[in-house]
Amino acid sequence: MAVVELSIVPLGTESTSLSPYVAACEKELREHSEGLKHELTAMGTIIEGDLDKILALIRRLHEVPFSQGARRVSTTIRIDDRRDKPGTITQKIKAVEEKL
Amino acid sequence: MAVVELSIVPLGTESTSLSPYVAACEKELREHSEGLKHELTAMGTIIEGDLDKILALIRRLHEVPFSQGARRVSTTIRIDDRRDKPGTITQKIKAVEEKL
Amino acid sequence: MAVVELSIVPLGTESTSLSPYVAACEKELREHSEGLKHELTAMGTIIEGDLDKILALIRRLHEVPFSQGARRVSTTIRIDDRRDKPGTITQKIKAVEEKL
Amino acid sequence: MAVVELSIVPLGTESTSLSPYVAACEKELREHSEGLKHELTAMGTIIEGDLDKILALIRRLHEVPFSQGARRVSTTIRIDDRRDKPGTITQKIKAVEEKL
Repeated sequence: MAVVELSIVPLGTESTSLSPYVAACEKELREHSEGLKHELTAMGTIIEGDLDKILALIRRLHEVPFSQGARRVSTTIRIDDRRDKPGTITQKIKAVEEKL
Repeated sequence: MAVVELSIVPLGTESTSLSPYVAACEKELREHSEGLKHELTAMGTIIEGDLDKILALIRRLHEVPFSQGARRVSTTIRIDDRRDKPGTITQKIKAVEEKL
Repeated sequence: MAVVELSIVPLGTESTSLSPYVAACEKELREHSEGLKHELTAMGTIIEGDLDKILALIRRLHEVPFSQGARRVSTTIRIDDRRDKPGTITQKIKAVEEKL
Repeated sequence: MAVVELSIVPLGTESTSLSPYVAACEKELREHSEGLKHELTAMGTIIEGDLDKILALIRRLHEVPFSQGARRVSTTIRIDDRRDKPGTITQKIKAVEEKL
């Protein structure tokens, strides 16, 4: 069980507005999430679940801006993989909030 | 006006549970946010506002794990700085959701 | 052809010295690089080549710290994937240096 | 003493070629490095030295693409700050290579 943050950014797109590309990725994610929990933030998307499933999904999402006309894509992935305890989006935030 | 994502992680802490450190950073952030909008996610904290104010705050937060006993800290900062239009946490998410 | 930067960091280790883990990853990389060009930096490893091959290699490397006893691993991947022109480690640095 | 990796990328530029922007940042860095050790990689720049000096320098470099016409800039900073032992670019790589 891993929690993974993903940011996919096309470069050299002429327009500084990237939301059409982000929305296309988000649509693809929703259609192919196969039960993986995910949430959109202002700086990317956080996905929780089986790491291999998540990485296969990310590989697919990385192609989306190219299919929308981008010729260069910068993708950043941060994996938090914990094997001693279940680490989930909810549990990670709850563990912090309990200590505040 | 910038949107900045921040992750502060102590290394070599013996315990894999990092929430005590994250909570201490979050407390410091809340006490010194000076009106900067911020939100906690499962993978970090997103802060919105004046870039210089945000960077000064981050500099302060980076010290928190050391003051809690950590001897090595890995801090990741991603800045999205847009000067042609206001870019805010709310506006960025809204721009994507409108296209879904 | 992509250029990918990789950083694999175990969390909650007893020591702040992570070089034994980095060295174990680097060994695994050298044994399984299958012709992918790679270089070690002070902040990670840069790999150049076919994106699918690179991602399969990274998936393998991400397991290395666990096999060395780590119970939590933070892996950061930055992909620069350019499809209009070949983008290589050498070409990227040369393009900058020519303009200096 | 910290080792910091920096990547400054303009978004929404007309061309996918970003080396003119990277070269302008690199020039600014060389003129204002004030003794900080730095090295260019295919995925960014690594800087070593006093953290406050480095962050002040990065703040300056982040403005460079805007002064070159960019209207949106994505800057990523990764700080490795070790206080129990000196952590330098050379020492970090050497510690890994000795174990290979």
